Amino acid sequence: MAITVVGSVAYDSIETPAGRKDRCLGGAATYFSLAASFFTDVRVIAVVGEDFGPEQEAVFNARHIDTRGIEHAPGKSFFWEGSYLENLNEAKTRITDLNVFASFEPKIPEAYRDSEFLFLANIDPVLQRRVRESMPDVKLVAGDTMNYWIKDHRPALLQVLKGLDILLINDTEARMLAGNNNLVQAARGVLALGPQTLIVKHGEYGATAFFSSHSFDPKGETADHAFRAPALPLEEVVDPTGAGDSFAGGFFGYLASQPELTPAVFRRAMFYGSVMGSYACERFGTERLQQLSRKEIDDRFIVFRELTHLD
Amino acid sequence: MAITVVGSVAYDSIETPAGRKDRCLGGAATYFSLAASFFTDVRVIAVVGEDFGPEQEAVFNARHIDTRGIEHAPGKSFFWEGSYLENLNEAKTRITDLNVFASFEPKIPEAYRDSEFLFLANIDPVLQRRVRESMPDVKLVAGDTMNYWIKDHRPALLQVLKGLDILLINDTEARMLAGNNNLVQAARGVLALGPQTLIVKHGEYGATAFFSSHSFDPKGETADHAFRAPALPLEEVVDPTGAGDSFAGGFFGYLASQPELTPAVFRRAMFYGSVMGSYACERFGTERLQQLSRKEIDDRFIVFRELTHLD
Repeated sequence: MAITVVGSVAYDSIETPAGRKDRCLGGAATYFSLAASFFTDVRVIAVVGEDFGPEQEAVFNARHIDTRGIEHAPGKSFFWEGSYLENLNEAKTRITDLNVFASFEPKIPEAYRDSEFLFLANIDPVLQRRVRESMPDVKLVAGDTMNYWIKDHRPALLQVLKGLDILLINDTEARMLAGNNNLVQAARGVLALGPQTLIVKHGEYGATAFFSSHSFDPKGETADHAFRAPALPLEEVVDPTGAGDSFAGGFFGYLASQPELTPAVFRRAMFYGSVMGSYACERFGTERLQQLSRKEIDDRFIVFRELTHLD
Repeated sequence: MAITVVGSVAYDSIETPAGRKDRCLGGAATYFSLAASFFTDVRVIAVVGEDFGPEQEAVFNARHIDTRGIEHAPGKSFFWEGSYLENLNEAKTRITDLNVFASFEPKIPEAYRDSEFLFLANIDPVLQRRVRESMPDVKLVAGDTMNYWIKDHRPALLQVLKGLDILLINDTEARMLAGNNNLVQAARGVLALGPQTLIVKHGEYGATAFFSSHSFDPKGETADHAFRAPALPLEEVVDPTGAGDSFAGGFFGYLASQPELTPAVFRRAMFYGSVMGSYACERFGTERLQQLSRKEIDDRFIVFRELTHLD
């Protein structure tokens, strides 16, 4: 089944202990699309500037990603510059130039309307909601957000959460959103806001899914209603940018590729998410995702199983 | 097979967001022994003061732990006071009174000499080495240490590492010991110092074992030579004190209970370690470990499997 994703397509200048790379093709929708494209059809809604040309278009085309929803506007594409020199787990933003993104009005091509899966990447919740409402017939909606929207745009974000099946955020964001430092309690708090499933991304420690469809166990043992996928201990994290979006793409892409959403499918989707997140870190920007093969993905899936399974 | 453990038996006054408890029976050797006692025979070497009486002795007796190696010295037992109010993952030490521990000279009872497993809990590496050398015939030796010894007693610690089969430390300690911020590279650095296996404890994210018996993969994929056990997402962490020592006890206790050390046994041991660590956090001090049953342990083992396994 096809996924429509709305989010940023951008240029990133990134500095990490492994080096520096200027104007990598990035943005949440780019990472997500590339990762998901190994599993299913992906359609992007975004806006780019005049600096987005045939070379960038070719990156999407090579993965058969539908770019008819990428609007070309006068001006420059969204630009971000950040550094991981101090902390590989958290970027320090140096520059954010919204450019054409400042006046982004997502438009949904007719050809996208039969998408059964919708991913609302991390953008203004007002836009996330608009896209969600424009696609009332989708079967499953997942989304991401960030500290900025949680802190300063809470009412708009709460509206989005009501329309989400699955929310993917990191530990800090989950704790901030729920106002609770205990992860299990924070998860419960977030689930009460709307999503049936919350996936909390732990960076180098993997990710945990919490489910609201079953009530939490009064003894405090929620694990039977939770699932934890590991991350791969990596010899070198060249660039962690987009790892979370790649996780989301692998996860949601695998879900969309399956005929039925069972607990077993959900668990495998989490593992595929971790696989895509681990690959994303191996080179700057989306380089590794651009050169990946499905065989490499499935090989690493087996490595993840080995890493975690008793036998 | 029996385990001899050398380490601290102490009193802890602990403050956490869940409350405060004064003079809990604690110390690394206490947590370790209680956790390991559910799997195998445990023999303790420690020193206590006149404040350690029949009530404390009874805690060990109830779990059939051999206390003949606990020396009673004039003065007070080791006392520690710490707070987790700011950070549940790291205690802020308020008071450390070594008391009788300051002049601790471990003495190994004759009855302990046929122990096949030895655990060197976190004490002065000079003492760890002395105990190690006094028990040359043990089959497997594991140990723990902490930032203080890594920073200020490195030469003595390096001597200990040469005699260890398994080292259990946390992320910060592994990175500090190897002088490398990347966990995989740090693990390789630590393994080069002696131990065949390094278990890095990640607190609420579980623990990862790295093995030196196979060389690291040149592609940077070490996962086929690593194993990651999760921690249980807990509704309430009442007191994280001793979780690492309880992990070590569950892990090493299970290993010692098995006729053969296979990869599958090692993996199950990691899970049992996580199980014991999770129980330790549920009440102040060693309270929960004192009241635990083997059935509860095995039930939670299944929960851990559910939490991580694809099917």
